[in-house]
Amino acid sequence: MAMEKIRVCVVGYGNVGKEAIECIRQAPDMELAGVVRRRPENPGLDCPVVASVDELGKVDVAVLTAPSRQIPEIAPQYLKKGINTVDSFDIHGDPLMALRSDLGKCAKEHGSVAVISAGWDPGTDSVIRMLFQAMAPRGITYTNFGPGMSMGHTVAVKAIPGVKNALSMTLPAGFGTHKRDVYVELEEGADFDKVAEAIKKDPYFVKDETRVTKVSNVMEVEAMGHGVLLQRFGAAGTAENQVLELKMRLTNPSATAQVMVAAARASTRMAPGCYTLPEVPPVALVAGDIDEILKHSV
Amino acid sequence: MAMEKIRVCVVGYGNVGKEAIECIRQAPDMELAGVVRRRPENPGLDCPVVASVDELGKVDVAVLTAPSRQIPEIAPQYLKKGINTVDSFDIHGDPLMALRSDLGKCAKEHGSVAVISAGWDPGTDSVIRMLFQAMAPRGITYTNFGPGMSMGHTVAVKAIPGVKNALSMTLPAGFGTHKRDVYVELEEGADFDKVAEAIKKDPYFVKDETRVTKVSNVMEVEAMGHGVLLQRFGAAGTAENQVLELKMRLTNPSATAQVMVAAARASTRMAPGCYTLPEVPPVALVAGDIDEILKHSV
Repeated sequence: MAMEKIRVCVVGYGNVGKEAIECIRQAPDMELAGVVRRRPENPGLDCPVVASVDELGKVDVAVLTAPSRQIPEIAPQYLKKGINTVDSFDIHGDPLMALRSDLGKCAKEHGSVAVISAGWDPGTDSVIRMLFQAMAPRGITYTNFGPGMSMGHTVAVKAIPGVKNALSMTLPAGFGTHKRDVYVELEEGADFDKVAEAIKKDPYFVKDETRVTKVSNVMEVEAMGHGVLLQRFGAAGTAENQVLELKMRLTNPSATAQVMVAAARASTRMAPGCYTLPEVPPVALVAGDIDEILKHSV
Repeated sequence: MAMEKIRVCVVGYGNVGKEAIECIRQAPDMELAGVVRRRPENPGLDCPVVASVDELGKVDVAVLTAPSRQIPEIAPQYLKKGINTVDSFDIHGDPLMALRSDLGKCAKEHGSVAVISAGWDPGTDSVIRMLFQAMAPRGITYTNFGPGMSMGHTVAVKAIPGVKNALSMTLPAGFGTHKRDVYVELEEGADFDKVAEAIKKDPYFVKDETRVTKVSNVMEVEAMGHGVLLQRFGAAGTAENQVLELKMRLTNPSATAQVMVAAARASTRMAPGCYTLPEVPPVALVAGDIDEILKHSV
């Protein structure tokens, strides 16, 4: 008996949206229902591109690739229709917990599932940090990012007067500290020294060692590679020296999109409600029959 | 309001059992109910050491540190009393799936929970292999163990005539292959060359490059350190080069015991049934209020 495929739509068509389409196409248990965009122009895709999910027929899950700030408004629109949602909401702490509570209420009321903050950090890194804590409950975990582009820092630089285009790289400086490496393309007549000073005084940069470099074309230094090194120097029982490390080198939009698509699958295996990734049983993220996965992978 | 502590007993008093006692004592949300041993002699512990769990009053979870082969017989005795169980059953494939099915039926019938194969491999490594697969669904994962002592291989060597004591180390040889480094203490009059030949012909060793060394005292080379390097060379979406690595250096019995104790905690947060570690939401393994953990660690 052929399994019915999970019908997934992608909301948004930026770097992550484009990759999500590719990840869904490669998933053996999924079918791309279409793409939802504010302006429903089809950029040459062989799937429906629409302004409203209502035009796509049955949809099981919506992968929301919109910016974090828009998620609290967008997600309920889908959950209310009984469509599961996945996002990569990355505003840690209170906003994340508020989203979990709000979407949880909405999802339970409408029999749908929301999986939130399902990227690689927050997301799979959060899961690994918890596993590390469970394995070595005493100790310290360091999260070291990069080298790789920081979206938030790049946007902050672009907002500074005189900056035409920019790129901010996050460089790991050891044990959870980071340096910033900023490349700027200036508007005509802008003063580089003033721009550099404004960047270093910006709240995004003021606490970190920051180097600013002028380039004629930001495109030449822009790349989507990223990485992380999670280290826990911990202890368990009488063992004082349990050392746990996760090291990843990733193409950033592909990694984010793939975790979201795996979370979309998991959403179809959960009871109505809202979940962060550490609340989802890891086996639910993997394609295939759960007994078969466990038999071959435990 | 003080939370009621989870009352946990440890079944068995070997290397892992001793460490489990220590891990429970260090857990802020647990209380050691006592130790169950076949011969209930108290080796100087300041807790009850008994032959039957019935002598320990209320017990929520039993951490079963008995050998894998005894688990299918021991676990139901506890599950039938409504006591959750945790084991580190390590016979992969069909035996593991049979255990999951049998304990699942028993646990559901009696309103209890079994978490099986909850060590570091199988166990947390299984979880990480699944996360890696979810993040990069195309690709290959290599599990590289060691350097560290292999219990199974050590027992196999000890069974060879002429061997008084032995230690078999697992050495990583790259990309999922391993070498064996065997240290033997001979019985008087035993022929080293014959013993070495018998070891190399043993089914445990016949496929791997094996070095045998004679020592006067195995105790001098025995240590409980172990390690693993999990590597996935994978791809997601259009990104062909997603590289994921987990590297751990562990004191083996402490790591096993600590994962079991974390699983004991998780068992109190699950619906009746039997679960492998990838079926358990990772947050359930960590001590504390789940909302608080998520707020600070996602």
